[in-house]
Amino acid sequence: MVSGESRWEKRERIRTHLLDLIEETGTGRPLPGERQLCEELGVSRPTLRAVVDDFVRDGLLVREHGRGVFVARAKVAQHLGGSPGQPQTLGVGGVDGTWASRTLDFKTVAAGPRIGRRLGIAPSEQILRILRLRTVDGDPMCVETLHVPHALVPGLTARDLETDSFYRLLGRRYQILLADATQSIEPTVVDEWEAELLGVSVHTPALLFERAARDAEGRVVEFTRSVYRGDRYRIFTRLSLAGRPDGGRVVDGSWSAATTVPGADTLAFDPYWSN
Amino acid sequence: MVSGESRWEKRERIRTHLLDLIEETGTGRPLPGERQLCEELGVSRPTLRAVVDDFVRDGLLVREHGRGVFVARAKVAQHLGGSPGQPQTLGVGGVDGTWASRTLDFKTVAAGPRIGRRLGIAPSEQILRILRLRTVDGDPMCVETLHVPHALVPGLTARDLETDSFYRLLGRRYQILLADATQSIEPTVVDEWEAELLGVSVHTPALLFERAARDAEGRVVEFTRSVYRGDRYRIFTRLSLAGRPDGGRVVDGSWSAATTVPGADTLAFDPYWSN
Repeated sequence: MVSGESRWEKRERIRTHLLDLIEETGTGRPLPGERQLCEELGVSRPTLRAVVDDFVRDGLLVREHGRGVFVARAKVAQHLGGSPGQPQTLGVGGVDGTWASRTLDFKTVAAGPRIGRRLGIAPSEQILRILRLRTVDGDPMCVETLHVPHALVPGLTARDLETDSFYRLLGRRYQILLADATQSIEPTVVDEWEAELLGVSVHTPALLFERAARDAEGRVVEFTRSVYRGDRYRIFTRLSLAGRPDGGRVVDGSWSAATTVPGADTLAFDPYWSN
Repeated sequence: MVSGESRWEKRERIRTHLLDLIEETGTGRPLPGERQLCEELGVSRPTLRAVVDDFVRDGLLVREHGRGVFVARAKVAQHLGGSPGQPQTLGVGGVDGTWASRTLDFKTVAAGPRIGRRLGIAPSEQILRILRLRTVDGDPMCVETLHVPHALVPGLTARDLETDSFYRLLGRRYQILLADATQSIEPTVVDEWEAELLGVSVHTPALLFERAARDAEGRVVEFTRSVYRGDRYRIFTRLSLAGRPDGGRVVDGSWSAATTVPGADTLAFDPYWSN
């Protein structure tokens, strides 16, 4: 116990101590026991446990019942931005490891009002509604629901999506060239059903992406909802104005990356462009 | 009950029905009662409630005890990417509304091993560790901890950060021009202490950002950890290759936004450039 310490300062002290330990301890190796940590920090067990629980939930630590707490594997990092002049060599999906896809459900249904609006078609029009599980090196990473106007992809099968990427199929088989998309990213927690598919606990933090992509003719080709498990997945962004320091203006408290100046800055990669 | 329906199909049917209802019902208006919804959908109360609970957790619905379930306010949208040729007029922070900052803690401490490593300084070196709450139109939006080498910002006060933006202070008072940053985005849930500050329930989904920004001389100027409440905040990205359709190549299943081609695509905005 440190005298005069606020609640935040105590929490911060425990967090800092554990984060230092996690960095020093290798992946898969155990942290010291609870009793020892409580003594080192001068805090009670419930206080320590609250922070450890947060770290377990966020995927920094893994609790093995009866064995203790271990340092988790590093997360899969997904690049969102690239540096000028430094083309990134990214694997499929921009993630190290081999992505694969398993089709769990594949049906033709009426679009309905909401999805119809997203796709710019009548509610009664037929769409393919495809549920799939995406994996990296065999580990479940994301549960995805695609909605695609059926008329655009005649003959597409569940199996096609397991042997080739959706975007490549669009391009090669259907001559559909993607041109434009909007996407939102929000935090969520997995529900019971997603937890089962992803092999994580219910209410594990996750990233929810919703994307609508259009082709060169302005048709919305897909509306997709994806839930990525947060204990294994993070987005990594890098923005560099190096070499163009005068571009790095401070505008009204915001750092504008030369929004209006066509230049070397590129939005190099977006996790959702990989499909 | 629809015969032959899988667990996923039932969940999807309830979700779709509620999402349609949410779109048709205005913000702040109530959804029909539980009994009516259960009858319309042919599902049990616990089954319906599980989906409603997910939507409440994600900030789509608000439950008012004894009064029912209401459609929540739209989230604050934060742009991450911009369209070529369409300069975005963004407010401070890229978000509609007025951002403000309240400094909750402001201390000079030793960096320690982990933060020292992030900042590229010795563990014994002094840093400012600043805790602040950021608000939009008075609503708590984010809890942020800044770590800044003390030597870079002599004379900075807690009050300074409430009357001006950190980045503007860096530029104007300390002649520090930001040049480069790395940032990770992960999902998390708020702990008890963050919940209290943000005025949300414990374990509400949130976005965790960690950012290290460097100046033109390569010095790391800040390492910052920010937790944005997910029920009010989403990231919105837009990527357009319109006008340059030949740039929209499908490369090995990934859509590469002309990574290596200096062109009109810009990473227009990053929530973290606003500070």
